[in-house]
Amino acid sequence: MTYSTAPVPATICGPGALGQIGREAAALSRHARVLLVADPFLETQGLLAPALAALAAEGLAVSPFTAFTGEPKSTHVAAAAQAGRAAGADLVIGIGGGSALDIAKLATACIPGAPDPMAYALAATPLPPEPLPSLLVPSTAGTGAESCATCIFSGPDGRKLWAWGQELKPRLVLLDPELTVSLPPALTAWCALDAFVHAFEASTSARSHAGAALHAHHALRLIPKALPRAIAAPEDLAAREALLLGAFHAGVAIDNCGTAIAHALSHGAAALAPVHHGLATALGFGVSLRWLVARPTPQIEAAAQACGCPCAAALPEAWEDLVARCAAPLALPEAFRAVTPEALVRAVSGPECAPMLTAHRARATPEELTGFARAMLDTAA
Amino acid sequence: MTYSTAPVPATICGPGALGQIGREAAALSRHARVLLVADPFLETQGLLAPALAALAAEGLAVSPFTAFTGEPKSTHVAAAAQAGRAAGADLVIGIGGGSALDIAKLATACIPGAPDPMAYALAATPLPPEPLPSLLVPSTAGTGAESCATCIFSGPDGRKLWAWGQELKPRLVLLDPELTVSLPPALTAWCALDAFVHAFEASTSARSHAGAALHAHHALRLIPKALPRAIAAPEDLAAREALLLGAFHAGVAIDNCGTAIAHALSHGAAALAPVHHGLATALGFGVSLRWLVARPTPQIEAAAQACGCPCAAALPEAWEDLVARCAAPLALPEAFRAVTPEALVRAVSGPECAPMLTAHRARATPEELTGFARAMLDTAA
Repeated sequence: MTYSTAPVPATICGPGALGQIGREAAALSRHARVLLVADPFLETQGLLAPALAALAAEGLAVSPFTAFTGEPKSTHVAAAAQAGRAAGADLVIGIGGGSALDIAKLATACIPGAPDPMAYALAATPLPPEPLPSLLVPSTAGTGAESCATCIFSGPDGRKLWAWGQELKPRLVLLDPELTVSLPPALTAWCALDAFVHAFEASTSARSHAGAALHAHHALRLIPKALPRAIAAPEDLAAREALLLGAFHAGVAIDNCGTAIAHALSHGAAALAPVHHGLATALGFGVSLRWLVARPTPQIEAAAQACGCPCAAALPEAWEDLVARCAAPLALPEAFRAVTPEALVRAVSGPECAPMLTAHRARATPEELTGFARAMLDTAA
Repeated sequence: MTYSTAPVPATICGPGALGQIGREAAALSRHARVLLVADPFLETQGLLAPALAALAAEGLAVSPFTAFTGEPKSTHVAAAAQAGRAAGADLVIGIGGGSALDIAKLATACIPGAPDPMAYALAATPLPPEPLPSLLVPSTAGTGAESCATCIFSGPDGRKLWAWGQELKPRLVLLDPELTVSLPPALTAWCALDAFVHAFEASTSARSHAGAALHAHHALRLIPKALPRAIAAPEDLAAREALLLGAFHAGVAIDNCGTAIAHALSHGAAALAPVHHGLATALGFGVSLRWLVARPTPQIEAAAQACGCPCAAALPEAWEDLVARCAAPLALPEAFRAVTPEALVRAVSGPECAPMLTAHRARATPEELTGFARAMLDTAA
């Protein structure tokens, strides 16, 4: 009856945290050569310049890599690693959303190890004994990529893959709310709801344990209070900081105990047409929540209380209230109008979704699953 | 307005966790050579044999070091490091109370680095770039040595010293409540009260921040409930596990934000006559608590609520109730009858106690400090 908790990375948290990147990077890099994987969006918005200046001020030679868009691909990681190797980098910095951070994390293995990240896909071969250290700076509050050991990327055939290892975690995470104020309201909402679902699922599945619940409940306390404030006043730095912390701790929670049915529905949908991960996850959570809380466990009750609900039965209404206070109604993109509930159920029933679909003690029947799929797809109508 | 949180080590928690030491040590040691720093008490009680068997079963060559008693000394660390170097150890395991763990932690630096730990006392010289990895197993629930970056030891002249570095933290902590059931009730109480004070001081001082409070409040929720149960039924494994978790998370909290006035009083007393650290700390806390809660801050109110108190003003009574449910009244050893309040105040006012004495926003006047000292010394009468 033992359970394991994974290590939690160090952080610097608060407005201005990014300003410490120079000093911190200098402490982590012995030879003052850094690969910087950064979201191209940040570069065009001028949000990268202060970080580059801070790194230059410490005498660090920075090789930037921004040649990627959308979800991370193995070719992105290979190209980032090649840039890092050519520059003799001994530290990788990632600044951006989950994609930038996952490319940076996996590059820490590919620079000293296999040049092609496919070597590490689905743990095909062991990670190199000593990946490079990394320093990560999330510019969205959602994925928790900065606090977990998993890297998600797609292979040459487009299939979604993962690499995993505690060695891939960063040495330091900078949580600076100023970086996230320019995020459009819909993205703020989708990312935060994704993080909320991370925390909820990690603390209520059959794999849950007290070590993960500590972090998950913290995220569940923070996010529902902070999200409406960040939507109403995008420059509210305290709300933005709370969302970054919520996403970080939700990442710690899934790092320990994984996700569940809402993520199965989300991954199934993503396999059929392009959709933002947080949006699809929030929809998957919404359509299955009433079913889930009708089968309450002590873990679900505890999660509900962390959210500020008197009991699990009050959760669906609280969720709908939270969603209503977001920028816009949650709806699948138009492309999903052509998808049938049966097709979505088939996508959700594949082997890659099985661990998530069966994570809770309660198991959805095929009929219940079809009902969830229909409810999700109805939002696209 | 940023704050830093230190990394938190991985754990395996629960009855039987010690049984996993073989597999986990094998994963951490490349050359299968291990230095095992273990409390001599555990050896004589036969509590070490299962760990040794588990390590041998994985083909690990184990060099045991048990030649120490009482508080850790630089000579203990040097001897442990010499044993490790002679054995070609590439992993250090520490099993025992805070002394064993601190010797093990500092040996990780002295084996590849300076043979004499005085090189690292008060950060005299930098730690070696890569200390050996360590795996720590606390056999008492108190110091939090397993989760913090500090090693306490005394030098050749008997002066209490510290070494510090994130590199000294373990790769893995095994929290096995079965190891702690044989602890005598008084030691169980003193260690748990020490951990409680760690959590309280780290979350209420002027240095406190939300990152430390997450861990501190967890400890404050766990310890007051579990301690009376562990005293009443020493083999209550759930209570023992809660105390181990409380001590671990309190260790994380002081790793971030340090201690305060109760620890100043404790260290001052220890400089005058031998006394168990946890006992002296609990006494220091008890005599200064009414003064502290008469100057409440939002942090003190939050800590009180984590303890289950409606407000800070209710804390002294809750503390006295907790102490009353322990094995025996808290009292300084007889040797303190010869100590005057003025001598204790002088000891508390030394430079080494200053950061603790001034950690809270409220500062005790010399008269108030004398009152605390008199109240502590009165227990020895």
